[in-house]
Amino acid sequence: MYQVGLIGAGRIGKVHAMSVGANPDARIKYVSDVYQPAAEELAAAYGAETATVDEIMNDPDVDIVMICSVTDTHADLIVRSAKAGKAIFCEKPIDLDIERVREVLAVVKETRAKLMVGFNRRFDPNFQAVKAKIESGDAGKVELVTIASRDPAPPPIDYVKGSGGLFRDMMIHDFDMARWLLGEEPVRVYASASSLVDPAIGKAGDVDTAVVTLTCASGRIAVITNSRRATYGYDQRIEVHGSKGMVAAGNVLENSMGFYGNDGVTTAKPMFFFLERYAPAYAAEFASLMEALKSDATLSPSGDDGYRSLALAEAALASLKSGAAVSVG
Amino acid sequence: MYQVGLIGAGRIGKVHAMSVGANPDARIKYVSDVYQPAAEELAAAYGAETATVDEIMNDPDVDIVMICSVTDTHADLIVRSAKAGKAIFCEKPIDLDIERVREVLAVVKETRAKLMVGFNRRFDPNFQAVKAKIESGDAGKVELVTIASRDPAPPPIDYVKGSGGLFRDMMIHDFDMARWLLGEEPVRVYASASSLVDPAIGKAGDVDTAVVTLTCASGRIAVITNSRRATYGYDQRIEVHGSKGMVAAGNVLENSMGFYGNDGVTTAKPMFFFLERYAPAYAAEFASLMEALKSDATLSPSGDDGYRSLALAEAALASLKSGAAVSVG
Amino acid sequence: MYQVGLIGAGRIGKVHAMSVGANPDARIKYVSDVYQPAAEELAAAYGAETATVDEIMNDPDVDIVMICSVTDTHADLIVRSAKAGKAIFCEKPIDLDIERVREVLAVVKETRAKLMVGFNRRFDPNFQAVKAKIESGDAGKVELVTIASRDPAPPPIDYVKGSGGLFRDMMIHDFDMARWLLGEEPVRVYASASSLVDPAIGKAGDVDTAVVTLTCASGRIAVITNSRRATYGYDQRIEVHGSKGMVAAGNVLENSMGFYGNDGVTTAKPMFFFLERYAPAYAAEFASLMEALKSDATLSPSGDDGYRSLALAEAALASLKSGAAVSVG
Amino acid sequence: MYQVGLIGAGRIGKVHAMSVGANPDARIKYVSDVYQPAAEELAAAYGAETATVDEIMNDPDVDIVMICSVTDTHADLIVRSAKAGKAIFCEKPIDLDIERVREVLAVVKETRAKLMVGFNRRFDPNFQAVKAKIESGDAGKVELVTIASRDPAPPPIDYVKGSGGLFRDMMIHDFDMARWLLGEEPVRVYASASSLVDPAIGKAGDVDTAVVTLTCASGRIAVITNSRRATYGYDQRIEVHGSKGMVAAGNVLENSMGFYGNDGVTTAKPMFFFLERYAPAYAAEFASLMEALKSDATLSPSGDDGYRSLALAEAALASLKSGAAVSVG
Repeated sequence: MYQVGLIGAGRIGKVHAMSVGANPDARIKYVSDVYQPAAEELAAAYGAETATVDEIMNDPDVDIVMICSVTDTHADLIVRSAKAGKAIFCEKPIDLDIERVREVLAVVKETRAKLMVGFNRRFDPNFQAVKAKIESGDAGKVELVTIASRDPAPPPIDYVKGSGGLFRDMMIHDFDMARWLLGEEPVRVYASASSLVDPAIGKAGDVDTAVVTLTCASGRIAVITNSRRATYGYDQRIEVHGSKGMVAAGNVLENSMGFYGNDGVTTAKPMFFFLERYAPAYAAEFASLMEALKSDATLSPSGDDGYRSLALAEAALASLKSGAAVSVG
Repeated sequence: MYQVGLIGAGRIGKVHAMSVGANPDARIKYVSDVYQPAAEELAAAYGAETATVDEIMNDPDVDIVMICSVTDTHADLIVRSAKAGKAIFCEKPIDLDIERVREVLAVVKETRAKLMVGFNRRFDPNFQAVKAKIESGDAGKVELVTIASRDPAPPPIDYVKGSGGLFRDMMIHDFDMARWLLGEEPVRVYASASSLVDPAIGKAGDVDTAVVTLTCASGRIAVITNSRRATYGYDQRIEVHGSKGMVAAGNVLENSMGFYGNDGVTTAKPMFFFLERYAPAYAAEFASLMEALKSDATLSPSGDDGYRSLALAEAALASLKSGAAVSVG
Repeated sequence: MYQVGLIGAGRIGKVHAMSVGANPDARIKYVSDVYQPAAEELAAAYGAETATVDEIMNDPDVDIVMICSVTDTHADLIVRSAKAGKAIFCEKPIDLDIERVREVLAVVKETRAKLMVGFNRRFDPNFQAVKAKIESGDAGKVELVTIASRDPAPPPIDYVKGSGGLFRDMMIHDFDMARWLLGEEPVRVYASASSLVDPAIGKAGDVDTAVVTLTCASGRIAVITNSRRATYGYDQRIEVHGSKGMVAAGNVLENSMGFYGNDGVTTAKPMFFFLERYAPAYAAEFASLMEALKSDATLSPSGDDGYRSLALAEAALASLKSGAAVSVG
Repeated sequence: MYQVGLIGAGRIGKVHAMSVGANPDARIKYVSDVYQPAAEELAAAYGAETATVDEIMNDPDVDIVMICSVTDTHADLIVRSAKAGKAIFCEKPIDLDIERVREVLAVVKETRAKLMVGFNRRFDPNFQAVKAKIESGDAGKVELVTIASRDPAPPPIDYVKGSGGLFRDMMIHDFDMARWLLGEEPVRVYASASSLVDPAIGKAGDVDTAVVTLTCASGRIAVITNSRRATYGYDQRIEVHGSKGMVAAGNVLENSMGFYGNDGVTTAKPMFFFLERYAPAYAAEFASLMEALKSDATLSPSGDDGYRSLALAEAALASLKSGAAVSVG
């Protein structure tokens, strides 16, 4: 039985707690949160205790540290967990500062710590089916990847201000998906982006509508479109155009009901937001972590995956500022 | 906290155990099964004990008896539970013999026992959305209900022999759906059915392909098509044609992936079978039971719902034998 | 160049005129209509002359008579055309009186006239694709055919009164489709039908909502659902469930546009009515007639096809009256 | 009756001839082609005569010149037609050399000639429905336009060599669509493109896989993806993401047939290529020309539309060469 120390009892901490709770080989030993009542409530629900971060790090029974706290704590917690010999699951991003990410990964490498970064979408069953189809060879060589990723509504402006901006906060998931689907690292990044959804976002120096083109050395191209607002719900689609066929994953709808009336046929919206849409992905993510730990395999997505997606976000930002394409890697 | 005595630790017993386990207001106190190791395994997974049926009936702490054992035990167990003052959840059917069902329901009435019959499909979120749309009035008056219900593969012939036949075993779910969607009781039943899928089914005196037409006094019509084998998976679709529009629920697919190639576009099959397809329905079913118990409301679907669907199955059988339409009700 | 004498310059006559006009091997020589201005207008559009029926029959240059006049003229015109040695295209039905149909077909047989009956749906490219898939064997043996056929709005009550009723006027197309798709003649017919759409239809002794089950000797079943009113447009769908797979043809929509908004995704309605929906079918129908004439092949659908579908309509009517299933053939 | 002089009796000339033939207000008087037998065949089919270009220009009865000949003749023919006082329909592009286009348009302006450029896609009923929906305001303000445009198979390498390259030959249609849907001129163009489909295309200095991002002054963005080869057929899709909703047009399939089998559900490919897919668009295009002429309205798409799309193609080429985004307008 693997013992988990869970740091961060907010929305995403609860999601991961559920995954641990459902896994027969793991249990939550500790929950830690700067807001003690939140820690207590979550701990109680899973028969766990609350603890400080120190206590988690010092308890040799804790096998896995799950970092679900706010972004600016991630780097320190990874370093401490790595030094304490724990396996680490960290929600994305590792840090908003790419230099700091490099330092953290150096510690991870030195300590040979096992680190998994929370790019949950890789575990979505629909996207897994896409990936499996590509790997089957049925679609031939990948040539063009198209990712549409649009949130139902913009976040509060305070969130926006601390988020690192759309590229580091939102599109970073799509950068990871693009890398995963391309099977090759992009070498050139071009970004076009605007603030069309909410003027406050533009005023805060961020964008809410963006198109980024990633080009690989082989000539493969990926293009990502993001919007902070889709009135029709959480839009999450991918298309991989290959030499022998295209593989696509459409949205997952709230239900299969359709109404046929005077105005045509109306079907449901996509599932509301990431917690609903990616619920199976979160469960599969933790199951994958457990499988890897049990078989002593490498964790994936790795710290390097976290680094590379952040590097693409940095490049997109630089491109946006300069108006030119930017080289990476 | 409601205490549950679960009788029957087979496939469907495990499904319901999961629903109880996930409900914050209920726990499994006892598991009983004629095969003790099965009872032990399931009890262990939920921190419950094993018990005999007698022990369950005699323990005043048991609030709910969940009957998930084989069909020919249902009637007795309902009667015993009713007399013991328990709330009862019973998997369909109450009994294959409609006279016996009448006797059982008489006891239920006399003892004022609360009885819910396991027509899980009513709780499927897609069908719930259909029902809600009808009740919103957007579709106007219901005129024509079409139900396609097809299993991926025929059951073993031994199962067929003890099943009571396609109408009582398989189409009974569709009879319940038809009644629920029509909002009116059928008064006339006509069945056309054949054994086309597996000659062994015909040899056993049963059919595997069937079309049944139900007609109501108002003139509303429902038509149900069943097959014991659909190579493309578990086919579960409904359409309700109303005076102002049609409401339909399509299949729930295994994933949203599509492959676009030389042969066209290929998408996934429907989810494999009832345990997968109706997993959310089973959870919602138990949640509905709990809500009703907590608010002292009537349980639904009721014993009468179980009776009426069986009566339609009997009428279908009679129609098949006589070649004529048969009156009911 | 085949010379056509077209009788009937109404709505359907114009459709067929267009098909002749587009065919490089045929031309309209004469148009005849009891309302002379209609004949003149249509003749002018195709460089043809107007003529009486006598003139058409007596002109040895006329190769093909196309009968597009009102139903009660069909039988006489077929007889006259057959005796005049013309190839005949006749809109369905041959006649509403099945005895009269038998007499007509006796003349056709005697004179060895070539006769094609206008079951246009067989030539719809979508249904042709279904038929071809069945014939490829990919779907295995046909077991269950489901046809949904619903008009956008009920016809004027005067039309209803002269139509011969829903079974002879509307469902006759579906009877033909069912026979074509089953590949076997039905031996038993059961009808359930009501007047739910328009009380005036019921008052006129007709029905507007109907479900008919056709059963073949082999046990294959077809079920047809009809409504005289579908608020969502002209609903024309077929499904053929076979031992190896199901082949289906969905509706043809007005356009491929979808609107994604707060209420979900709304797509277009089916193409409005038969003239639009089956425009390609009408063209292919005449092309098929021409191919058959040029290669001296048998015309299909034949007079016998017209007869058999009418016989199914008669049986459905008898079933509706008696409440019992009725044998045919 | 408007008299048409049709220049170019090849594939696209035949398409336009059909549109003229079907229009009650126009007729083809002359067909001209450098290959006389082609001119003769097409002329014969429409009761027209063959003629030299001089004869067409000099005949005062010719109202409309339709230029369907090879690209490098377009500019001269527009100039001559304009000077001869004809209304002009010219297939895209006006010329591959943007300077030459400017000169031609100067003549058109000077002579006040009426000129329509053949961007047929604007007349596709599906895209028209998208445009109408945008103009209705239901989708709010346009923010992001996504166009996928992929040919079923690459053209012969000889065609590629004379085509002006993918941007001027293929994507020019998408540039026009983007402008039409954005409702605003792009000010910045970035192109990423590769030769992945056919090495011979790369060797000829062209690309076969391309992504172009167009950014407007307001911040609106359009992104176009092109491939010269889609194994699944002619892929033509657009999506317009607005502040109140998204409007999309999916592919038009060969038929509505679906096969449900062991491998899932397989539906048809998109209609094969532009002649089939855009057949209704070609007809509507000529009808629009006629409507405009009859009401003395401005022709659209105009020569300026032709110029601006070519300017975007030039900018895309410049961006591809420099690796940087390029300003336009």
